[in-house]
Amino acid sequence: MVKISLDVMGGDFGPEVVIPGAARALERHPEITFILFGQREKCEPFLAKYPKLKAKSVFHDCEVAIAMDEKPSQALRRGRYVSSMWRSIEAVKTGEADVVVSAGNTGALMAMSKFCLRTMANVERPAIAGIWPTLKGESIVLDIGATIGADAQQLLDFAVMGGAMARALFQIDRPSIGLLNVGVEEIKGQEEVREAGRMLREAGLDTLNYAGFVEGDDLGKGTVDVVVTEGFTGNIALKAAEGTARQIATYLRAAMSRSLMSKIGYFFAKGAFDALKDKMDPRKVNGGVFLGLNGIVIKSHGGTDAEGFGSAIEVGYDMARNGLTQKIENDLKLYHTRFPSTSRAGSSSAGPEAA
Amino acid sequence: MVKISLDVMGGDFGPEVVIPGAARALERHPEITFILFGQREKCEPFLAKYPKLKAKSVFHDCEVAIAMDEKPSQALRRGRYVSSMWRSIEAVKTGEADVVVSAGNTGALMAMSKFCLRTMANVERPAIAGIWPTLKGESIVLDIGATIGADAQQLLDFAVMGGAMARALFQIDRPSIGLLNVGVEEIKGQEEVREAGRMLREAGLDTLNYAGFVEGDDLGKGTVDVVVTEGFTGNIALKAAEGTARQIATYLRAAMSRSLMSKIGYFFAKGAFDALKDKMDPRKVNGGVFLGLNGIVIKSHGGTDAEGFGSAIEVGYDMARNGLTQKIENDLKLYHTRFPSTSRAGSSSAGPEAA
Repeated sequence: MVKISLDVMGGDFGPEVVIPGAARALERHPEITFILFGQREKCEPFLAKYPKLKAKSVFHDCEVAIAMDEKPSQALRRGRYVSSMWRSIEAVKTGEADVVVSAGNTGALMAMSKFCLRTMANVERPAIAGIWPTLKGESIVLDIGATIGADAQQLLDFAVMGGAMARALFQIDRPSIGLLNVGVEEIKGQEEVREAGRMLREAGLDTLNYAGFVEGDDLGKGTVDVVVTEGFTGNIALKAAEGTARQIATYLRAAMSRSLMSKIGYFFAKGAFDALKDKMDPRKVNGGVFLGLNGIVIKSHGGTDAEGFGSAIEVGYDMARNGLTQKIENDLKLYHTRFPSTSRAGSSSAGPEAA
Repeated sequence: MVKISLDVMGGDFGPEVVIPGAARALERHPEITFILFGQREKCEPFLAKYPKLKAKSVFHDCEVAIAMDEKPSQALRRGRYVSSMWRSIEAVKTGEADVVVSAGNTGALMAMSKFCLRTMANVERPAIAGIWPTLKGESIVLDIGATIGADAQQLLDFAVMGGAMARALFQIDRPSIGLLNVGVEEIKGQEEVREAGRMLREAGLDTLNYAGFVEGDDLGKGTVDVVVTEGFTGNIALKAAEGTARQIATYLRAAMSRSLMSKIGYFFAKGAFDALKDKMDPRKVNGGVFLGLNGIVIKSHGGTDAEGFGSAIEVGYDMARNGLTQKIENDLKLYHTRFPSTSRAGSSSAGPEAA
């Protein structure tokens, strides 16, 4: 049994999307139980349509819903303890839920998650990991926007956390990890990326296979299981790729409706186009995962539909079932015990000082 | 008449691609004359096939060709004064040519260009500008890999230089400029990007229209004429977008050959697919432009074919014909005369000290 906590008010559409999304996830994984947090009068009408979901859920009425454009600081002031967002996160802290899923605004969700769950020992800053569709399947890319900039040690923490996520999600023992960098000869990349590369090579970790630097076009190729970068570049790379996919879809639609011949062609090839659409469907890989907190938080796209929110729930389900938090904690501990000199202040004093 | 200097030995294929590429560009623009730099015995066989090009060219035999994997420092040591790359750049310095085009290795080309042409007054570091295909047409994106990192003043120089290029290439009086940033609420982006935004807003330049921050997905949308970022992020965004385009092309090919129906569909829609392929053709927008040097240097993709190299020549032709270097110099001067306090040491002393 996996217990999933939902911020029903989150996202552009709130209960209208979250509740049907949960119903879809339940259809596929009947062993899920839900804890729902939302404004009762807004949720009831939708919940009434899904009696199976209602039977497998506990509903908690919350007075406050966080707006999509609310600043994190304001959201914290107004919504701490009382909002559907906060309380859905809190359910993970108290152990009532294994994972929380919200389509609410990223900044507020991250601020509340940090405040409520706190970062793990040895982790200075959490990261958001995205699941990137590739020619080989899927890769994990982090950080895609939790913070700006990262020093070598933080990049290394991202690598360990991303590796643990890959082990949980893809069920591989020793996922390959690449550091995102530029390939131009003269400029061999940021100093912190080079330093992180040296550290990863020297560490020789059992839980991950460091494959060196990768470039922007390796993301789509699926060259490695996990791509590590800091949040500014990661966020821009993600959005540039999404934008390109939308751009090509627009070209394709225009091309297919430009003549009678192409319309006939479209008619015959419709099955193929549907398969392509399915491949390119951003809803299928919906869901960023907050890593480095004492609990699993899944962020779904704010503008997603029920299918997309259902996918985000399934990502959370996979993470919880495979013990992601425990895996991350163990991997980080392993690393920081072996390399105590790299541990953060406060935690390093607990470990042995000699290598 | 536009005089174009070519590094015939540059690129993965050298004269095999450069010479037919030049012939194509000449076909379209008979007013071009060429100055060719290469190893005579390797170039002659190809040149013999294009008598029209031969008639419009002066050939200079060079003993050294720079390898694609040569380090910039090594290329400079080995190739200064004597290589086809160096001499083709030098032709711009001496005024024999209006612009140089090379498909040679980016690091070496940038190192030699800086060494030979020097950066313009008021410019601390050159940038590489790319032409990005968008839903609205084309945008200019810089820096896509000349250097790593940029402070606010450098981002501002990029904006002024990119604006001048947009005025030359798109023939608009006051191109719109956006600074690439992340949209997540909590993290409002790098300090230098915010500072550059403040400076651009306050400057209120006549030559460009500052439109604020843009995100990664605005690149493909064509939200602004010029997108400004530092080279690490710009390079990764470019390659992520290129990778995504290739990824989708692969999906599309697979989808179209998966069944008899889809093959029939492909047959009927072939015209549409060709139009799409044309839209997505990276060769059409081949060519990065080095900005901020005392002369125009065009970098073509190393692996391009004759059509792609021809496009790169045409970009150079457009830039030269529209007086890009002069436009950049004027715009920078205008800016730095109006805001002398922001000028670099060495050049600021020449300007008036009072605002």
